[in-house]
Amino acid sequence: MIGEVIPFRLVSGAGVDVLDQTLLPAIERYVRIETVEVMVEAIRALRVRGAPLLGIMGAAGMAIAATRDPSDAGISAGAEALITSRPTAVDLGTRVNQSLALLRGARETGRAGAAWEFAADVARERVAEDRAMGAHGAPLLSGGVLTHCNTGSLATGGIGSALGAIRTAWEQGRITMVYATETRPLLQGARLTMWELTRLGIPATLLPDTAAAALIASGAVSAVITGADRIAANGDSANKIGTYGLALAAARHSVPFYIAAPLSTLDLVCPDGGAIPIEYRAAEEVGGFDGWRWTVAAAAAFNPAFDVTPADLIAGIITEAGIARTPFERELAALSPTNPATLT
Amino acid sequence: MIGEVIPFRLVSGAGVDVLDQTLLPAIERYVRIETVEVMVEAIRALRVRGAPLLGIMGAAGMAIAATRDPSDAGISAGAEALITSRPTAVDLGTRVNQSLALLRGARETGRAGAAWEFAADVARERVAEDRAMGAHGAPLLSGGVLTHCNTGSLATGGIGSALGAIRTAWEQGRITMVYATETRPLLQGARLTMWELTRLGIPATLLPDTAAAALIASGAVSAVITGADRIAANGDSANKIGTYGLALAAARHSVPFYIAAPLSTLDLVCPDGGAIPIEYRAAEEVGGFDGWRWTVAAAAAFNPAFDVTPADLIAGIITEAGIARTPFERELAALSPTNPATLT
Repeated sequence: MIGEVIPFRLVSGAGVDVLDQTLLPAIERYVRIETVEVMVEAIRALRVRGAPLLGIMGAAGMAIAATRDPSDAGISAGAEALITSRPTAVDLGTRVNQSLALLRGARETGRAGAAWEFAADVARERVAEDRAMGAHGAPLLSGGVLTHCNTGSLATGGIGSALGAIRTAWEQGRITMVYATETRPLLQGARLTMWELTRLGIPATLLPDTAAAALIASGAVSAVITGADRIAANGDSANKIGTYGLALAAARHSVPFYIAAPLSTLDLVCPDGGAIPIEYRAAEEVGGFDGWRWTVAAAAAFNPAFDVTPADLIAGIITEAGIARTPFERELAALSPTNPATLT
Repeated sequence: MIGEVIPFRLVSGAGVDVLDQTLLPAIERYVRIETVEVMVEAIRALRVRGAPLLGIMGAAGMAIAATRDPSDAGISAGAEALITSRPTAVDLGTRVNQSLALLRGARETGRAGAAWEFAADVARERVAEDRAMGAHGAPLLSGGVLTHCNTGSLATGGIGSALGAIRTAWEQGRITMVYATETRPLLQGARLTMWELTRLGIPATLLPDTAAAALIASGAVSAVITGADRIAANGDSANKIGTYGLALAAARHSVPFYIAAPLSTLDLVCPDGGAIPIEYRAAEEVGGFDGWRWTVAAAAAFNPAFDVTPADLIAGIITEAGIARTPFERELAALSPTNPATLT
C-alpha cells in the first residue's frame, strides 16, 4: 500500500504512538507510550531507533515524565532513565538535557506544557533539517542510486538523511531505481529501507552486501549515498559497517560517493577517523538472525557496528547548511554552527 | 569434535555415502546413494556441491549406473541423467563423459569394475592436486588470513583449494587465525567453512560480509585468499559474489589477494573477464534464508552468483602446477596442460 511513512505521532499532553520497527516489514503496529518505563523499554528493544529519531523520543519522553510528575525529582528521574536507556545515542542525551534545563527554569504547573511544546519543536526542526538536506542533495542524484542501511523517516523522524535526498530526487523525477543493500548483520536495508521505499512507491531493488561491487561495476548506479554516525574534522566518516567497502568500489569505477548527515553529526574534536571510537557488538548477531542460526555453535565473530570511510573517497558531505567538499577540514568548519563565521 | 572432514566415501561395487551439506552445520548425516536417481536428487538439492566434488560424483554416478545396468543403453541413460542434473557444472559433465567413453570401450562384464576404478582415480587425482595447490600456496600465508565462501573438502573432495592452502599453512604452524565471511546470500562461509575449520581445530572467526573492509583496514590479515570458478586468459577471475569487493579492500591496504584454483578452472578461450558469462539467481535468495523472510513481499533483487576480479588486483593465482603472477597471460599459458611447453 503506497502512502506516507509515519514513525511516530505525538499525542500532546498524553503520550506518543511509536511504530514498532522490530515488527517491520511483516507487521505495522503502533505502540502507545504513556510512561517513561514503556519508552525506555521501546528504546532498549529497538522498537524505535535511529539517532535523530531517538532525539525526538528523548524530548517526548521528558514531556511524558513532566506530565506524570512535574516535580524536580520527577523530571530528574525521567531524564536519568531516558539517557541511560542507550548511553551511546548522542541526540537522545542532548535533547533530554535540553528539555531538563528548560523545565528546571519553569514553574511546576507549566512544565508539562513547556515539555510538549519543546518535543514538537524538536520534531519540526528534524523535518526542516531533513528537507534542507534533501534539497541540497537531490541535484547530485539521478538514474540509479545505491544506499546502505536505513537513513529514512524510520531513522530520523523527518524524510531522512541519505534516503531523504533520494526521496527528494525521486519527487523531482531524477531517480529511476534505488538499490538497497541487505545490510548484514541487522538487515536494516532489507527490513526497513525496502519497506520505506515500497511504501513511498519508489522503485527499489534489494541486493546482498556481497553484490554491491558487481552492481557498481555494471554501470547501473550513478551515485552511492549513505548517512553517517560521526564525521571527523578532516571529513573521515564513521557509518554503518559496510560503508567503507561501498566507497572503495565507487572510487574504482569513478562513481561519486556521498554522505548525507546533519551538522549534529560533526565531531570537530575528532581530528580524523582514527580518533572515532568504534562499537563492537555481540558475536550472536553474526551467523544468524532473530534466533535463527546458520553457523557452528559459539562461533567467534568480528562484528564492529561501524567502519570509517576516509575523506579522500568522499565526493561530498551533504548537510542542512550545504555541501562540504574537499578540503573538508575548511569546508566543514565553515558550515558548522559553532564556527563564528556562520553565527554572524 | 575435532577430526577429519569426509565429504563422501566410495563403497566400491555398491554406491557412495555422501555427507548431506544441506543439513550442516547442525546435523552431520550421510546419505547412502545406490541409484542414479538418488544421486541426481542429491546433486539437484545441493546435498553435494562444489565443482571438483561434483566431478567425483559424476564418476561415482557412472559407476553406480554401470553396476545397475552395464548395457550401452544403461550407461547412456545414466550419463544423460547425471549431466543434466546441474548443466552449468563443468567438472560434472567432464568426468561423466570421460567415464562414458571409457566404458564404451570396455566389455559389458568389465564395465562396473572399470567405472569404480575410474571413480577412485578421479578422487585420488583431486586429493593430489589439492595437496599440490596447498604446498604451493602455504608459503604465501601467515598470521591472520581472510577467505570467502567454501573452498574446502566440502567443495572439492580433497583438502580444498583456497582452504586447502590455508590448512597446509596451518599444519606448518604459519596461521594464527582464519577469518571467514558469512557469504550472503547462500551463507556457505557461515555454514560450511566455519564447520570445516572448527572440525579441523583451526582457529576461526566469522564476519558479516560488510565487515571485510574494516577487518582488512585493521591490519588483522596478512593475505586474502579465495577460489575461482573460471579464470580468463588475462587472469581476470570469476568467483563467488563478493570476491571483487574483498580484492578492492585488500588493494587499498596493500594486502596481497590470492586465488587458488585447479588448472581445470582456466578458460583460455575467454580473453578477459568481460567474456565470462555470469549466472543470475532467483530473487528469493535475497531478503531471507531457507524459508525465513526479512524483507517486503516480492522484493526485486540483484542477485548475481559471481563477480569478476580484474587481474590487476590479483597478486598470484595458485594452481597445482605452480603460481602464476603478472603478466598472467604468459604465466597462465605456461602452466596450462594444453600448452605444448608443459607437455614435453
